Amino acid sequence: MLGMAAFAPSGIITLTTDFGLEDPFVGVMKGRILARFAAARIVDLTHAVPAQRPLEAGFWLSRCFAYFPAGTVHVAVVDPGVGTARAILCTVVAGHALLAPDNGLLGAVAACHGDAETVDVASERLGSLGVQRVSATFHGRDIFAPLAAELASGRCTPQSLGHRRTAPLAERATAGQATGRSVRAGILTGSVVTVDHFGNLITDIEAQHLAPLEAREVCIAGRTLSLRRTYAEGRPGELMALVNSFDVLEIAERDGSAALTLGVGRGATVTVG
Amino acid sequence: MLGMAAFAPSGIITLTTDFGLEDPFVGVMKGRILARFAAARIVDLTHAVPAQRPLEAGFWLSRCFAYFPAGTVHVAVVDPGVGTARAILCTVVAGHALLAPDNGLLGAVAACHGDAETVDVASERLGSLGVQRVSATFHGRDIFAPLAAELASGRCTPQSLGHRRTAPLAERATAGQATGRSVRAGILTGSVVTVDHFGNLITDIEAQHLAPLEAREVCIAGRTLSLRRTYAEGRPGELMALVNSFDVLEIAERDGSAALTLGVGRGATVTVG
Amino acid sequence: MLGMAAFAPSGIITLTTDFGLEDPFVGVMKGRILARFAAARIVDLTHAVPAQRPLEAGFWLSRCFAYFPAGTVHVAVVDPGVGTARAILCTVVAGHALLAPDNGLLGAVAACHGDAETVDVASERLGSLGVQRVSATFHGRDIFAPLAAELASGRCTPQSLGHRRTAPLAERATAGQATGRSVRAGILTGSVVTVDHFGNLITDIEAQHLAPLEAREVCIAGRTLSLRRTYAEGRPGELMALVNSFDVLEIAERDGSAALTLGVGRGATVTVG
Repeated sequence: MLGMAAFAPSGIITLTTDFGLEDPFVGVMKGRILARFAAARIVDLTHAVPAQRPLEAGFWLSRCFAYFPAGTVHVAVVDPGVGTARAILCTVVAGHALLAPDNGLLGAVAACHGDAETVDVASERLGSLGVQRVSATFHGRDIFAPLAAELASGRCTPQSLGHRRTAPLAERATAGQATGRSVRAGILTGSVVTVDHFGNLITDIEAQHLAPLEAREVCIAGRTLSLRRTYAEGRPGELMALVNSFDVLEIAERDGSAALTLGVGRGATVTVG
Repeated sequence: MLGMAAFAPSGIITLTTDFGLEDPFVGVMKGRILARFAAARIVDLTHAVPAQRPLEAGFWLSRCFAYFPAGTVHVAVVDPGVGTARAILCTVVAGHALLAPDNGLLGAVAACHGDAETVDVASERLGSLGVQRVSATFHGRDIFAPLAAELASGRCTPQSLGHRRTAPLAERATAGQATGRSVRAGILTGSVVTVDHFGNLITDIEAQHLAPLEAREVCIAGRTLSLRRTYAEGRPGELMALVNSFDVLEIAERDGSAALTLGVGRGATVTVG
Repeated sequence: MLGMAAFAPSGIITLTTDFGLEDPFVGVMKGRILARFAAARIVDLTHAVPAQRPLEAGFWLSRCFAYFPAGTVHVAVVDPGVGTARAILCTVVAGHALLAPDNGLLGAVAACHGDAETVDVASERLGSLGVQRVSATFHGRDIFAPLAAELASGRCTPQSLGHRRTAPLAERATAGQATGRSVRAGILTGSVVTVDHFGNLITDIEAQHLAPLEAREVCIAGRTLSLRRTYAEGRPGELMALVNSFDVLEIAERDGSAALTLGVGRGATVTVG
């Protein structure tokens, strides 16, 4: 397990959840981390993932983790099955360790990175790490936070957490929520994965999928849009498509909200051809 | 004052306010802290406490502080009386120091922890710590931030800040806002303290209050709900009651918002019997 | 360039953007910073500046930066022109370094601080710092984050980044968005710059502008208000004016939202006389 062994902790932990920032849930996770590993540096990735949408968390995580130093522990808790028997996974990829429930969240990471290696965290291992008095409804605080602290401090290794998962995670993700991305008769079809703060519609169509296509007309919600390179290339109020800074196709409105103007959001169909 | 003397700073400071995160108010508090104590590690607990609701801040603080390492300084500023003659309190409990205005906010902590000890911060002590040029409207920045930095850095001790408060804080809290929790004829009555990001209704009924009761039907807004152990035990869309991870009764909807479905919020009456 | 030379890094970086906190954009900037400067301490000032309003970011930055330790790097990215040829500026003032696009954002800082010195960041300098593979739409991550890390770590100096800007920034700011502040016949006229979390209307009228006036009636939205010292001086529900803790005139409602009650917001006219 060379990939696993390549994890050398940086002391940094990122957090991705659907907890929001109104309540002290995220703060309490940080307290738990600091209580075990006082030198941890903790960065919020996002806490606004919609509940019930682990794949959206996985989308962002797969596109963001590599901007952090190798050795970072990334914790992602979007976990409708909290308190049930679902497993907890630790995936190591490119020297980063990712912790998440086994609900498809890590599928996007595994799909993008063929060398990702994953273990099922063994429940008896949690006990040996002193992860006890676990509540039925807040594993972010009671399991993920202490596990992240142990990994980030170097007191335990990913490979020591349990047995190697051999079934491919990507299939699980696909089973959990079809991405709908397909090519037929030269038409590429994808869908909107998330809507950002500006009302930009961010899709699962990657730049590499666009490259082989000659035509470059993008259709969404009955509108046909041109591909631009920057927001500023459009006229004020113009709807446009562009490959965004995370290398996926995005529908944007110059100085406005494409989501509001088009009246569509997550799950909307996008075609390119 | 053994309790007070037990405070040994961890260098960690948590912040709980009603400032929101839209404006730079919280950031400026952190700047002031770092200007006095460059090594401080600062964690946001919540900044979304509704204005005018210091007791809600106290509810969360009393249920969250112990997840941080002993020696943490917890600053809570929900302070409608800012700029008036209201006192500032420092409570030490279980090795943690809590700073807040004297408006009942710390009552929940004192009520839950019989060994909590409190001092009234003396205004002349502020001067000796160099807390000067205090604005009339932003004591979070001008008083609480520098005080927290002095405590967290170990340059001053809680007991040095002023005189011991002898009147019980819990009574003040009750006077400020009745919790309404009572037992009559085997029926336990409480109320909703806060509504979380998911629309869960979080009450002031603690697990220990439920234990002596035989019947376990929970009534709210004309509905009678069953007690569950996890969200996932309910059917999708099912309203349920459960003891949440902070050991209080919560009304939740599987995959939905109990607050929206029931049409109630803070202050709503809950009975168990 | 004595002012520039006075910058001695504290290791602290603040972030001010219009990115919001829903998406991982801010987190990814922090990842990029930590990948270059692992010891950076990063503080969010605000991420809720309205898109297209760089001057509002500049207003807050000019009033907040001095609460941080000297040697802090303040990054402000409200940048509708991202991906175009607009320059990037580094202003040094009072021992702080401020990084922002050249769109008027830094005008308020320059206007308040006559000793501010600014350089145009040279694009070839970015290359020599290893700032490469720059996306067309996310310079916060691809340019500002690495630049901030280099400055905060002391590996490069502000004066090494490019050529001194001689044209005054303040004029650019005024050209970009008139503040409308003027005095005529003893009547001081200003406008609302921002609306805070509490619905307070924060204006561009500074305490020093008020001082020479004898009369102190404040008019906004057809209402005439009295000047108070603290919120608590007003009766519940009373609309009032006060000089706030950032030394500018603010319209507030005791225990309520002045913005909602008056039905006005950014850009509304305020007169004092």
